[in-house]
Amino acid sequence: MSKSIFYHAGCPVCVSAEHDILNLINPDAVEIVHLGEDRSKIEQAERAGVKSVPALVTSNGNVLHINFGASLEDVKG
Amino acid sequence: MSKSIFYHAGCPVCVSAEHDILNLINPDAVEIVHLGEDRSKIEQAERAGVKSVPALVTSNGNVLHINFGASLEDVKG
Repeated sequence: MSKSIFYHAGCPVCVSAEHDILNLINPDAVEIVHLGEDRSKIEQAERAGVKSVPALVTSNGNVLHINFGASLEDVKG
Repeated sequence: MSKSIFYHAGCPVCVSAEHDILNLINPDAVEIVHLGEDRSKIEQAERAGVKSVPALVTSNGNVLHINFGASLEDVKG
């Protein structure tokens, strides 16, 4: 099974959500991507349908937007 | 450790999110509450800080609103 991918950008709400998600999910089943530090992944996130962070893209391609930290436009800016 | 509680209301986006969440989380660690079927839990959800469903209230009390299915006002209506 492919991994889920958790995209965040280091904003406080993202870090809190990341902590909660990782407490619940097997860490081996999820890849964490910090879009602020790894900006080359922003396009990948957009193609996956991510509109804002934090977001979890599940292994079957569904995008779960969690709370609302920052739009991808803000992450790019 | 107390369980996380996943609140939903049976709307399509909720069911999809529920399916995804349950694939990722140990089912023994999460309680599923269908607010449409168990309306007595709406007040409990509000007290926990839930504004819309689907939402996951983690065992440490954080509320993760996932996508946006329906506001609690809509669930009550």
